[in-house]
Amino acid sequence: MTETIPFNQRLQQVQERTGSLLCVGMDPDPARLPEHLSRDVDGIGEFCREIIRTTREHVCGYKFNSAFFEALGGAGLDLLLDLRQSLPEPLLAIYDVKRGDIGNTAKHYARAAFESLRMDAVTLNPYMGYDAVAPFLTDASRGAFILCYTSNDSSRDFQQVRSEAGRPLYLQVAAKARDWNGGRNVGLVVGATKAEAVAEVRETAPDLPILAPGVGAQGGDLEAVLRAGRSSEGYGLIIPISRGIIYAGTGREYATRAGEQARTYKTTIQKAVTHE
Amino acid sequence: MTETIPFNQRLQQVQERTGSLLCVGMDPDPARLPEHLSRDVDGIGEFCREIIRTTREHVCGYKFNSAFFEALGGAGLDLLLDLRQSLPEPLLAIYDVKRGDIGNTAKHYARAAFESLRMDAVTLNPYMGYDAVAPFLTDASRGAFILCYTSNDSSRDFQQVRSEAGRPLYLQVAAKARDWNGGRNVGLVVGATKAEAVAEVRETAPDLPILAPGVGAQGGDLEAVLRAGRSSEGYGLIIPISRGIIYAGTGREYATRAGEQARTYKTTIQKAVTHE
Repeated sequence: MTETIPFNQRLQQVQERTGSLLCVGMDPDPARLPEHLSRDVDGIGEFCREIIRTTREHVCGYKFNSAFFEALGGAGLDLLLDLRQSLPEPLLAIYDVKRGDIGNTAKHYARAAFESLRMDAVTLNPYMGYDAVAPFLTDASRGAFILCYTSNDSSRDFQQVRSEAGRPLYLQVAAKARDWNGGRNVGLVVGATKAEAVAEVRETAPDLPILAPGVGAQGGDLEAVLRAGRSSEGYGLIIPISRGIIYAGTGREYATRAGEQARTYKTTIQKAVTHE
Repeated sequence: MTETIPFNQRLQQVQERTGSLLCVGMDPDPARLPEHLSRDVDGIGEFCREIIRTTREHVCGYKFNSAFFEALGGAGLDLLLDLRQSLPEPLLAIYDVKRGDIGNTAKHYARAAFESLRMDAVTLNPYMGYDAVAPFLTDASRGAFILCYTSNDSSRDFQQVRSEAGRPLYLQVAAKARDWNGGRNVGLVVGATKAEAVAEVRETAPDLPILAPGVGAQGGDLEAVLRAGRSSEGYGLIIPISRGIIYAGTGREYATRAGEQARTYKTTIQKAVTHE
């Protein structure tokens, strides 16, 4: 039965059940591992497993950054599957891989994400349009978060360019994504460093969940983002925090520190939501 | 010494030396393998090795479509490295993975492409702007082909939208890519199904090599594309052909047929270039 619930509804159910909008971003950089861990797939595996163990009671899911696993070669993908399968129910696994390709290729990427790696959702790049998104939407229980507004400086190169109609590209993306949400499994990625952008996107796409990175190490204002982005029911947002949690401690107590930070973020988010 | 030659110059040297603008696209779909091969990583490995054996004398390189290897899990990435290392000098390996991410993540993707998988060039997605491209340009001997104009129907969703200045997004991308080519290692991906688009991009970015997919199974007009896209020296284009070569035969003779098709395409391209 779980398989027939659209992803966006699943997300809200998991957030209700866990009481958390927080998701931990798993970006395990070998250069930033605690010293006692080896800088290889074994060390990274231990690091990730320990972080999951101490943070899992505070989150609605995990966002796995594919780059850090692919950089380990084939063994990295095996580790990724292993970590995904270790997550307790009902936590969600988001595969942050920013895919953007078409046709047969996209079908194979969807298979890699949803079948081989058993992820619940994936991040996608909109540049090639609907054709690059559609293959990820056929199973409504799996979600696709489409890059919309990113918080890096060079987002102005293209995302902020206005069309003849006067609308910046990122709002054109938000409008198209809203049209693609017939299966209720489309979301958007909107950087949390600019709350006004979150508000504009929310206005353009009232029902789409927003994955809003940038609150932790990148310095976004949590309360402003929550105010701008959450839907009327108090959901509609996922707040992924990576470095602010997984590198909270640098020594042998790293996992304990990560758990503490995750609890703090969860509570801060809950309070911010309740205050409104 | 080879390491200090910019990628775009290397590409031209390899095309001169091999007398070929053709590159074989390796998109090994398990569902399309000859019947006598197993539908797993072993069967796909044999298929790819045989195709490379019969086509390598006719090409300047291979374009590996990451999706088909990632769908095999960790063993697929191991196979990819194995195939890349099997290529004889001076053939080039292009990693078609359409990356688009920033900062630390992009650095790890660059490491995965250039160090773990030892690729010579990679395809990138421009949506996040220069920040997502820069980490792939630091070693000038490695190239980055940036998605510009794609031949799918929904390229009109965003790529063809005109800015306030009246220029479609894909020509804004071409202009930026030209600016990013200080290290002479930036190229563009322009679908070969619309020769006018190739011509516009060539006018906007006179010196950038163009990777022009779509000539084979997708039906682009080879001569029109060559006329529109090649630079004054007769180079500046790579013509990747995938299905038209690797699935040319369906039985035990598949590799022989692939070699014949590769030779035919190479000759056709040579003649078309000479005719001008």
